[in-house]
Amino acid sequence: MSDLLPQLASLVGERHVVSGETLRDRPQDFWNNVPTPARALVKPGTTSEVSAVLALCNGNGIAVIPEGGRTNLSQATRSDERSILLSLERLDDIETPDEAGLTVVVGAGVVIQTLQERCAASGLRFGLDFGARGSAMIGGALSTNAGGFQALRYGVTRDMVLGLECVLADGTVLSHLIPFRKDNTGYDLKQLFIGSEGTLGVITRATLRLHPAPVTRNTALLSFADFTAVARTLSRLRRDLRGTLSSFEIMWPEFFDFNVEALYGERRPIGSGASFYCLCEAEGFEPDSDGALFEDVISAALGAGDVADAVIAQSSRQRDELWKIREDFEAEQNFFNVMIDFDISLPLKVMDKFVAEVDAALKSEIPASLGLHVLGHLGDGNLHVTTGLPTPEHASSLKDLVYGLIARYQGSISAEHGIGILKRDYLHHSRSPAEIETMRTLKRALDPRNTLNPGKVI
Amino acid sequence: MSDLLPQLASLVGERHVVSGETLRDRPQDFWNNVPTPARALVKPGTTSEVSAVLALCNGNGIAVIPEGGRTNLSQATRSDERSILLSLERLDDIETPDEAGLTVVVGAGVVIQTLQERCAASGLRFGLDFGARGSAMIGGALSTNAGGFQALRYGVTRDMVLGLECVLADGTVLSHLIPFRKDNTGYDLKQLFIGSEGTLGVITRATLRLHPAPVTRNTALLSFADFTAVARTLSRLRRDLRGTLSSFEIMWPEFFDFNVEALYGERRPIGSGASFYCLCEAEGFEPDSDGALFEDVISAALGAGDVADAVIAQSSRQRDELWKIREDFEAEQNFFNVMIDFDISLPLKVMDKFVAEVDAALKSEIPASLGLHVLGHLGDGNLHVTTGLPTPEHASSLKDLVYGLIARYQGSISAEHGIGILKRDYLHHSRSPAEIETMRTLKRALDPRNTLNPGKVI
Ligand SMILES: Cc1cc2nc3c(=O)[nH]c(=O)nc-3n(C[C@H](O)[C@H](O)[C@H](O)COP(=O)(O)OP(=O)(O)OC[C@H]3O[C@@H](n4cnc5c(N)ncnc54)[C@H](O)[C@@H]3O)c2cc1C
Ligand SMILES: Cc1cc2nc3c(=O)[nH]c(=O)nc-3n(C[C@H](O)[C@H](O)[C@H](O)COP(=O)(O)OP(=O)(O)OC[C@H]3O[C@@H](n4cnc5c(N)ncnc54)[C@H](O)[C@@H]3O)c2cc1C
Repeated sequence: MSDLLPQLASLVGERHVVSGETLRDRPQDFWNNVPTPARALVKPGTTSEVSAVLALCNGNGIAVIPEGGRTNLSQATRSDERSILLSLERLDDIETPDEAGLTVVVGAGVVIQTLQERCAASGLRFGLDFGARGSAMIGGALSTNAGGFQALRYGVTRDMVLGLECVLADGTVLSHLIPFRKDNTGYDLKQLFIGSEGTLGVITRATLRLHPAPVTRNTALLSFADFTAVARTLSRLRRDLRGTLSSFEIMWPEFFDFNVEALYGERRPIGSGASFYCLCEAEGFEPDSDGALFEDVISAALGAGDVADAVIAQSSRQRDELWKIREDFEAEQNFFNVMIDFDISLPLKVMDKFVAEVDAALKSEIPASLGLHVLGHLGDGNLHVTTGLPTPEHASSLKDLVYGLIARYQGSISAEHGIGILKRDYLHHSRSPAEIETMRTLKRALDPRNTLNPGKVI
Repeated sequence: MSDLLPQLASLVGERHVVSGETLRDRPQDFWNNVPTPARALVKPGTTSEVSAVLALCNGNGIAVIPEGGRTNLSQATRSDERSILLSLERLDDIETPDEAGLTVVVGAGVVIQTLQERCAASGLRFGLDFGARGSAMIGGALSTNAGGFQALRYGVTRDMVLGLECVLADGTVLSHLIPFRKDNTGYDLKQLFIGSEGTLGVITRATLRLHPAPVTRNTALLSFADFTAVARTLSRLRRDLRGTLSSFEIMWPEFFDFNVEALYGERRPIGSGASFYCLCEAEGFEPDSDGALFEDVISAALGAGDVADAVIAQSSRQRDELWKIREDFEAEQNFFNVMIDFDISLPLKVMDKFVAEVDAALKSEIPASLGLHVLGHLGDGNLHVTTGLPTPEHASSLKDLVYGLIARYQGSISAEHGIGILKRDYLHHSRSPAEIETMRTLKRALDPRNTLNPGKVI
């Protein structure tokens, strides 16, 4: 199809079709500052334009790769010279939030942080938050079913979606933007598009659930001698903080000590030598009493002998310093030359054993490995496991080793980040041949010409 | 296929194939005490037996209707002389609940109340509860995505499912019984089977989320002069009861007065003449302070002028009396000779107007109608609207009228109960032709021979 670009331009407007040098100059995604290969980057401004672009490409056998902020961690927006990139960035309107109903209708191109701020201005909370908040968009977050820091309290992205509008590969628009959570009118179609990484449909709009914005925030760093004490403390905080617990982030000492050293040198925020460190945060609605409740509950956990040591942040500066230990990966990236990370879920009761086993296996079978950094969202059963190698040489045997162990413990090889291209060949460690075949059946049914994000996920 | 019954018997055992007189003597479902038409009722005891039965029936063009407790309200388990009923009742094992991980693995045949009690014995709460708890089963609740009394707090059934095992029409077993909530390994297949009323697969097992069981329970009946005060009070209770609010059930006065009169005659629990009555309940973890907190919050709502009058239950007997007003439908059933009810969702902000409009339209267009009883789970946007007629004569114009209004307000024509046969012809009031066509595409893809519960939903 030689006149594709003019046809696209006639659908969305000339200045919304980017190609040639301009496109090549654009970094491919968050991780890869290499030229973007594609015939064009198309930026429709409405759902009907999305539909028209898809109908045109689908009719002409041209692959379409939807993109939001391109912050995904699974190579899910990689394109090639023959494909069209479809950016949803212009679908960026936010309707006035419904304060009584606790909902908001947004376009797929709205940046997460923009929505967070818009909601905060009305005393509301959009419960999704993660490091890429400044670039990632609603459509991308929905398509990857992102998790993040507050999933313990507000759930993952899937839990925040009430209604969805999306477009199938052939241009068919499916719109069901309901603002309520109870609806059993046939199949819950939206679920298919959430988390399917742009392979089944293009998300254009969504009705999202909101929550009242808490007004207090209390943060503590805790240290523990053993894993069962960590698990008991998580249960205690969940119960005794009366629903205000919003984060409970665990760090194994190798990671914790590494990052504390890198960030603060000798100025440690808490004593060394513990087996686990946890950053916990509660957000509530009672300025007069939440601080005292938080201190009481932490004291009780100390008193019970579960928590070895505790530091409660006394200022927002100190809170930021504590969070930096959990969130800053710069030193780690430099240290783990060839960095290899795993984003996994595991049953709580096997987590500790799993990490010990990975550690032992790495030491004995991949002696080149540069260490093992483990941290995670404990309340969600989700760990981020990172290691590094001096050269790429042993990367694939290292992956085989870790994925094999995850499979043995019946864990998930992708808790948050999706499959994309990066983990496609490992999918069988978490899903059976029958499941993968059923996914293919669905893909064929909804996108028979394999137009949408081909080669990703399955 | 003349030797079907012996073949089925060879798969599941002779005594687990019921036919002839014995089957006909069994009531068809909760509402219809008429003989059950079917070639046989088959009761497999394992997932592999379910698979074998499906493979056999699918291979021979025999329709299979899965059933649990047969308490559904949409004629979703109706069979005919040629079909096979597949009861999951023998898959009734409950694995030991994981108290730290807050999960349990159960068979599809477990009765809701049995699971509730098993969990309570371990200090845990299974968050699903509704009137049919003593008969309805997990597989049925999952397949109808049931809601119920505690959805405000724990969500609907879909929100409680972490992992699922089910069997496709051709016997393929899909098993993904993960015990954690974060898992982005390809398409989230389980979502397809939840709420699809047995038309896409047969559910055999599930991993369910649990919660710590609250230890306190406080109940109040409130009255209000206007709807905005009700909505404001719901927000207040959500916030100030610190996450312990578990029910907030609204009743319009026509229903409330009717049931109070029927149950208690002159002995009214609360003054008359209000525009709305709400039953609210909080369940918490602090025996020393929850009662006082509950009273304080209700007092504040009274003080603010939102609540007109309030009665706080002082004993469990009084609590039961209050709940009876909401739960007892015997008098209503007798009064509304031909009873017609609607289970709908609406945006909060149009609810009041919608009810007024239905009321006016009934009075002017269906003068035969015997009244309008409205109640619902306000926090979920879910109303149950019931009316009656002396004879069936005007039933279909009454339905057209109400469904038409629901569609105009962009509500859901089935919030909780599903579509089955009963609402199939009204589905288009809530879902577009493109959506219904997409549902058909999925049905054809997963069940190409139309074996599973044919004619239901779509
Ligand atoms: C620093 C950093 C921290 C992160 N932290 C977390 C974390 O804590 N938890 C977590 O879950 N994730 C995290 N992520 C990854 C996260 O999944 C993505 O950042 C985000 O969800 C993707 O949004 P995006 O708009 O950038 O989507 P993109 O990367 O542009 O796209 C992601 C996928 O969705 C598809 N897609 C995009 N838009 C649409 C649409 N409108 N319709 C259909 N398909 C679409 C794409 O084709 C692609 O498959 C992090 C990433 C970074 C860089
Ligand atoms: C008194 C009463 C009160 C009720 N209150 C509520 C309420 O408050 N909220 C609410 O949401 N609902 C309510 N319901 C209806 C509710 O949906 C059902 O009671 C329940 O969820 C169905 O469970 P069951 O085991 O009886 O399923 P069944 O009625 O046997 O089946 C329901 C549907 O699921 C299918 N099915 C059953 N088991 C399986 C399986 N293992 N795999 C695949 N498909 C299967 C059937 O084919 C059918 O389509 C009420 C019903 C009654 C009678």
